[in-house]
Amino acid sequence: MIDGDFGLLSPVSASPSVAALTGDRAVIAAILDVEAAWAVVLEEAGLVPAGSAAVVAEAADPGSYDAASVAERAQGGGNPVIPLLGDLRARVKSLDSGAATAVHTSLTSQDVLDSALMLLASRAVSTLLVDVKRTTTALATLAGEHADTLCVGRSLTQHALPYTFGLKAAQWFQGVAAAASRLSAVELPVQFGGAGGTLASATKLTASSQTTPFELADSLASKLGLATAPAPWHTNRLAITSLGDGLAALIDSFGKIAADLLFLSRPEVAELGEPLAAGRGVSSAMPQKQNPVLSVLVRSAALQAPGLASQLHLAAATFNDERPDGAWHSEWPALRQLLALALGSAGHVSELTAGLRVFPEAMRRNLEISGPLLLSEGVMAAVAPLLGPDGKQKLQNVVDETLRAPAAEQTRIYTKLLREAVPADKLSDAELEALLDPASYLGEAAEIARRIFAAYPGFTGSATSDSSTTKGATRG
Amino acid sequence: MIDGDFGLLSPVSASPSVAALTGDRAVIAAILDVEAAWAVVLEEAGLVPAGSAAVVAEAADPGSYDAASVAERAQGGGNPVIPLLGDLRARVKSLDSGAATAVHTSLTSQDVLDSALMLLASRAVSTLLVDVKRTTTALATLAGEHADTLCVGRSLTQHALPYTFGLKAAQWFQGVAAAASRLSAVELPVQFGGAGGTLASATKLTASSQTTPFELADSLASKLGLATAPAPWHTNRLAITSLGDGLAALIDSFGKIAADLLFLSRPEVAELGEPLAAGRGVSSAMPQKQNPVLSVLVRSAALQAPGLASQLHLAAATFNDERPDGAWHSEWPALRQLLALALGSAGHVSELTAGLRVFPEAMRRNLEISGPLLLSEGVMAAVAPLLGPDGKQKLQNVVDETLRAPAAEQTRIYTKLLREAVPADKLSDAELEALLDPASYLGEAAEIARRIFAAYPGFTGSATSDSSTTKGATRG
Amino acid sequence: MIDGDFGLLSPVSASPSVAALTGDRAVIAAILDVEAAWAVVLEEAGLVPAGSAAVVAEAADPGSYDAASVAERAQGGGNPVIPLLGDLRARVKSLDSGAATAVHTSLTSQDVLDSALMLLASRAVSTLLVDVKRTTTALATLAGEHADTLCVGRSLTQHALPYTFGLKAAQWFQGVAAAASRLSAVELPVQFGGAGGTLASATKLTASSQTTPFELADSLASKLGLATAPAPWHTNRLAITSLGDGLAALIDSFGKIAADLLFLSRPEVAELGEPLAAGRGVSSAMPQKQNPVLSVLVRSAALQAPGLASQLHLAAATFNDERPDGAWHSEWPALRQLLALALGSAGHVSELTAGLRVFPEAMRRNLEISGPLLLSEGVMAAVAPLLGPDGKQKLQNVVDETLRAPAAEQTRIYTKLLREAVPADKLSDAELEALLDPASYLGEAAEIARRIFAAYPGFTGSATSDSSTTKGATRG
Amino acid sequence: MIDGDFGLLSPVSASPSVAALTGDRAVIAAILDVEAAWAVVLEEAGLVPAGSAAVVAEAADPGSYDAASVAERAQGGGNPVIPLLGDLRARVKSLDSGAATAVHTSLTSQDVLDSALMLLASRAVSTLLVDVKRTTTALATLAGEHADTLCVGRSLTQHALPYTFGLKAAQWFQGVAAAASRLSAVELPVQFGGAGGTLASATKLTASSQTTPFELADSLASKLGLATAPAPWHTNRLAITSLGDGLAALIDSFGKIAADLLFLSRPEVAELGEPLAAGRGVSSAMPQKQNPVLSVLVRSAALQAPGLASQLHLAAATFNDERPDGAWHSEWPALRQLLALALGSAGHVSELTAGLRVFPEAMRRNLEISGPLLLSEGVMAAVAPLLGPDGKQKLQNVVDETLRAPAAEQTRIYTKLLREAVPADKLSDAELEALLDPASYLGEAAEIARRIFAAYPGFTGSATSDSSTTKGATRG
Repeated sequence: MIDGDFGLLSPVSASPSVAALTGDRAVIAAILDVEAAWAVVLEEAGLVPAGSAAVVAEAADPGSYDAASVAERAQGGGNPVIPLLGDLRARVKSLDSGAATAVHTSLTSQDVLDSALMLLASRAVSTLLVDVKRTTTALATLAGEHADTLCVGRSLTQHALPYTFGLKAAQWFQGVAAAASRLSAVELPVQFGGAGGTLASATKLTASSQTTPFELADSLASKLGLATAPAPWHTNRLAITSLGDGLAALIDSFGKIAADLLFLSRPEVAELGEPLAAGRGVSSAMPQKQNPVLSVLVRSAALQAPGLASQLHLAAATFNDERPDGAWHSEWPALRQLLALALGSAGHVSELTAGLRVFPEAMRRNLEISGPLLLSEGVMAAVAPLLGPDGKQKLQNVVDETLRAPAAEQTRIYTKLLREAVPADKLSDAELEALLDPASYLGEAAEIARRIFAAYPGFTGSATSDSSTTKGATRG
Repeated sequence: MIDGDFGLLSPVSASPSVAALTGDRAVIAAILDVEAAWAVVLEEAGLVPAGSAAVVAEAADPGSYDAASVAERAQGGGNPVIPLLGDLRARVKSLDSGAATAVHTSLTSQDVLDSALMLLASRAVSTLLVDVKRTTTALATLAGEHADTLCVGRSLTQHALPYTFGLKAAQWFQGVAAAASRLSAVELPVQFGGAGGTLASATKLTASSQTTPFELADSLASKLGLATAPAPWHTNRLAITSLGDGLAALIDSFGKIAADLLFLSRPEVAELGEPLAAGRGVSSAMPQKQNPVLSVLVRSAALQAPGLASQLHLAAATFNDERPDGAWHSEWPALRQLLALALGSAGHVSELTAGLRVFPEAMRRNLEISGPLLLSEGVMAAVAPLLGPDGKQKLQNVVDETLRAPAAEQTRIYTKLLREAVPADKLSDAELEALLDPASYLGEAAEIARRIFAAYPGFTGSATSDSSTTKGATRG
Repeated sequence: MIDGDFGLLSPVSASPSVAALTGDRAVIAAILDVEAAWAVVLEEAGLVPAGSAAVVAEAADPGSYDAASVAERAQGGGNPVIPLLGDLRARVKSLDSGAATAVHTSLTSQDVLDSALMLLASRAVSTLLVDVKRTTTALATLAGEHADTLCVGRSLTQHALPYTFGLKAAQWFQGVAAAASRLSAVELPVQFGGAGGTLASATKLTASSQTTPFELADSLASKLGLATAPAPWHTNRLAITSLGDGLAALIDSFGKIAADLLFLSRPEVAELGEPLAAGRGVSSAMPQKQNPVLSVLVRSAALQAPGLASQLHLAAATFNDERPDGAWHSEWPALRQLLALALGSAGHVSELTAGLRVFPEAMRRNLEISGPLLLSEGVMAAVAPLLGPDGKQKLQNVVDETLRAPAAEQTRIYTKLLREAVPADKLSDAELEALLDPASYLGEAAEIARRIFAAYPGFTGSATSDSSTTKGATRG
Repeated sequence: MIDGDFGLLSPVSASPSVAALTGDRAVIAAILDVEAAWAVVLEEAGLVPAGSAAVVAEAADPGSYDAASVAERAQGGGNPVIPLLGDLRARVKSLDSGAATAVHTSLTSQDVLDSALMLLASRAVSTLLVDVKRTTTALATLAGEHADTLCVGRSLTQHALPYTFGLKAAQWFQGVAAAASRLSAVELPVQFGGAGGTLASATKLTASSQTTPFELADSLASKLGLATAPAPWHTNRLAITSLGDGLAALIDSFGKIAADLLFLSRPEVAELGEPLAAGRGVSSAMPQKQNPVLSVLVRSAALQAPGLASQLHLAAATFNDERPDGAWHSEWPALRQLLALALGSAGHVSELTAGLRVFPEAMRRNLEISGPLLLSEGVMAAVAPLLGPDGKQKLQNVVDETLRAPAAEQTRIYTKLLREAVPADKLSDAELEALLDPASYLGEAAEIARRIFAAYPGFTGSATSDSSTTKGATRG
């Protein structure tokens, strides 16, 4: 007997809810759902005895199958459908041998497993999108609350320009909403091609009926809530890679948030804090530690997703023959792991954003580390024209001289040198002071946020629904 | 001086045409195009002196920049825009110092490089899709010509069912057309956010004008033929990963064709041959060799693309701050390499499919290796019901006993055992013979092909435009 | 409660024996082994009360811990050590509260988990090497038996030169033996650094004792059968990446065998066959199928291992601080999955090579497809000098003209053209015939095999121990 | 004509020195070196006319070959050896047609290209190790200078324990030295197997001579400074993957340093600074920016290396036949790119560590952010035993209550609560103060550093050669 795994070494996704959607039992349930739906399709088309589908449905109760045994026997044929089907057939026969003909007729393992994984994905993605909506709603709220919260924008680790935390939250929102939109547009099609992809068996089966194999396929899609497919896609794995790419892109967007949070919640920075919860963030050795464990787990997923998505492309790129000699088998663990990582990290991000602790004073304090030098791009643009043809060079000299001074002196020196460089009749003290106020150099921060929320109307909840502004308004 | 590379170790993409679209000189041209278009945008908005844009355009002649020198100096700031901009500014000033204000004003390096790479991608993808169309047209033609060419369908390396080469070509077509459709739907947006992503400088610049930074961005997009963006996407790399995923998916579809061809053109199989050309497929040691070098090169690309697409996701997933500390820089070589691999392999696949040599006799010969056993699924379905409740088991016994015989005897033995197992009054000799004819067990091969071409109307050229059939027709 | 997984979607490694070595329960056992060994270390050093270690040992019975619960609670601190430790402490206290001080004292989670994973790896690798030895012994036997079995060597899919199946087996042997040698040389060190990697707690603990923290670490290594480390390696993950690289390299060598087998056992080629076993290689739809499922599963592992090894490097390359913010956590599933894939595929390869069916007649038949053209390199070398300065060109013309003939004619035509090209006084008919005998052009095939076995003396068993030959002998 | 690339999009490695070692011209030179050395081998063995080797050497001047043209023609046969060989042969013939027989005789393309890449790697690795030695020497010096420089150790982004910057430098040293040791132990073997890997042509060539093909191979290895190989390794790519793994591991160790530096040089942290240099770290928009561009470039390499190493394993794992159908070709760009990234980043790390600016006051200031709570692990160990059976819980309560206070108050409150919790007769005020001094809780920081340097004696230069200490000394 194979010992079970519970995600001990993958804490980001080790939870009952993720396991319920992506675990072996969920796979078995999805396979049985496909077989049971197929029995209904056949019965509705008059191709199997009336009543068969009900028998199959009864037999297809996932709770009565032994996942460990199926897994072990899967080595024989190289896939789990074969042993599970053996068990299902035995149960159906024991209930009503006449119904056995409704099981798997005209299907091949790949029809069932591809369709089952699409079904599993469909269920997982639906749940995922609920967490995503919670996250984007929380981010939209944060963006609204902190539209005027000044912080510093950073590039290549250094202070770049004044920024607002509201815009930061809005950009996180944009990342998640755009990726989720893409993911939700991925089609999850039913698979039906029969043993060799020609529908040969189904053609014989339907030869004297009113239906066609294609109508059976569409009916199966409809019953499972999957997309229809123009043709079997046994060998063309775009549906699989698109799903994997979409999941990876969503996890990327979570990873971006985690990367920022892990920096911004460091003690030296302290602009943000993860929501506190009993027992979370503890250390086995250090009683004072409060680790940002949600972000850590999300980042661990973000580091893994790219490789898993790549695994699916590799399978697609080496998918030889009408069913390949290993590539197909290499898809399954990667796809399932991507689903689990997406679900696990979506839950953590949702919790993280809903309870995020924001410390505007720290943001302001960090912004002031760079002092007025942070505004030198704006100063350059406003002041250089006042200084004649070599204005830019003069101002660069001011910056360079300032940077040679100790950090604590730079604000004073920069202001003094600037004042000396520009005649007061060209720039009054008040004008100079305004130029050096970070709040004066936020550009379109508010309007950018507004445009972002407008671009993804389905993701904001009601909180930001009336936040529309005009150019005049945002500048007033 | 840096010595140049010409693709010596990447023969799949070592060609003048690929280099012209993706090489360093093409990057420089794209960067200069962005700066020149921006000057036009500024001039049209009345933000720089009339005539400036023409000066910038004159200065932005890519032929007059030294790529090796720019590359070497790129280490200073970590990106190639900074040194190239220095050179551009110097040239503009030497032509007309008043026009210098039209260069890069309110832009940041990332605006320029992101937009330039989108522009490069846009040009490469357009060219790519021409080769794709050639390929899909050739495949559609092959599918039409070989709609009735019998071959064997293979799964897990073994013979599965009768198949047609026409359907094989149609499935290759489906793979390429579906991937190309996805790629051509990828939006390639302009980037404009300014130094910190707030458009602060542009806000100042436009403060007393009739325009807004967003209108400038849209105007830039329009001039470059790029998509507009609702907001800066400095930190949300979905545009990049979607492009990479789309390119990888297209290369996957080429890889699938190459994988099949590399097997089917082996001497033991000999069902297909690459087009012959002087000097191609030669060996340095063996005078008789005719290597399928187009397929080999395509496969070498297909093995590389998944990792490169993954590299882009990794960057997206670790994109910290408002501009990151290495992730952004790791995107560039991966994206460029993906474009080069896609272009190179698209050209080879196009040549391959246009001149593919098809050997129907070899297909037939290989099909016959498995003899009537290949039809045992169909026999099982048709005959088992005639044999009572344990019909399936009886027929499995026939198969098992056949498989114990030497291969050369199996056709005779299987036919004999089958004949013995089924009373002639239930299955006449003629009916049995028909059951064992591979052409009788092709299922919906023709109709599947038809549905595939109908699903991708833009990819077939005129050759297959009137090939629509009905259920009746395909079965007749 | 988390539902367990049993490897349903990873049939290559879904077996009780693999699960016993790499599953969650094995991880728990390894963690408990580390804690129990540490208690012994502390007790032997006189740092905890006599008798404590026995209490910890009793409490550390892995069977009494609930893996699902530990996994679920691992989300709180981000790793499984913390909740498992809580359970262990509770059990120890319930047995003898005085012994609690022997649990985890001066350790940190990373000490325990790194050491436990090294322990897990050590056990898995030992088992792995047994299967490897079985494989290499089988390959050495095959090489010996088939030293004179002619086949064709293939390059870029085409026939290259005469070869022997014995050399093919010897080269497979070399691949496996070289990779296994490298893997067995990988050091698996104990981890001990304490909370921050300074051994601060242990320094205090041992301050008034006769021992040092380094001696405690060495003692722990000795008890666990791990290598000692000069210093904590909390942040330098070479031990992890070397292990991953070694496992990947071994799986590469299995993948090479599988790639060859999957081709050579195709019906069109039929040179090799997987060992037959009841219930193996079956299809859910096609009663006649005999899929080479061992090779398929091995290939599915070979396609996955490179990405997993890469995951470990990515963690190492982004391992920030004294313990990182996600990179560490991303190592665990990759490392465990690599171990499981290596174990699973090693078992399959061992079975495959032990029972490999070899069909020399088919090898000969395929060799003859290319006819004497296959010897054209040798002919070129032997004959060109006889034909004057443009001898090479004359012979290339012979080849080219031959290649224009139908395949069935080429042998006859090539021989005829050759005969015409070379005067009989320079090359007699007998000499020409000898030149065109594939067995005359095997080069050093036998000697290469001998050298390979000599280079890896530990891997051959006794079968080939007396196969040493000399230059004279192999040429005689 | 193919336009050349100069590394414009890969600034980490865009330098003349890297290009000289890894560029197309270097590849051509290595290929020509192999051919020229082979001519010497043949001439020394009396297998070609005396004087031939000198002619080949003269013809093999790399400067006279057109890399762009060779690259373009490489598509014909799929590798660059074939066209380059054509050019070489033509030049040799034009010099002395009798010498042509010394070119490539009995070799195959793979012999030449594998050997040439090993030669290229050998040269690149030698240069690399010089930069590594500079780096490790600089790190050893830093470790010595800062052995007593207090800083904070961080785990999961949070403050963990007191640390020293000396130990941090020592651990960086360990990472680099261990990886470099591994890399320098990688064997780079010559390749020689002939067209099919049987040495058939060489066997004929040497048949009537005193030598054997194996002796020729060993002689070639010796002339090129490569390792000998027991047998051809055409199909077993462990030499390639080991090299790739070794390069990736070295880049990992650089990436770890960069990850730390990028955090520690942030304005909010300011513990370290990159060396300043004119024109480095500039921004195209922000005049005040000083970007840590060396670290950024190193990190960009560290994010890429894992995928490239993985590419080599993928090739090895799918290396079918005696020469494969794409896998071999996919190795070349990955291997070359790894060499370039390693060289580029080694140079940057060397410069970075040699000129690193260290700010001990900032380290101290950041250490104090956490105040005495940072010592709570040590306090727990020292004080809990004084407080009876529930001592640990009492102290955890103290920590928890402290954490509820504002950060600025925590030092005062923690000290006060501690003082209240422990009777003064069990812990005097002086003892309590000592417990709360971070310098008292550094554990074995100095001794760990010493052990690290002792473990890698070749990497320290003379600076640390007499730093050996004893247990007593480090504790005194």
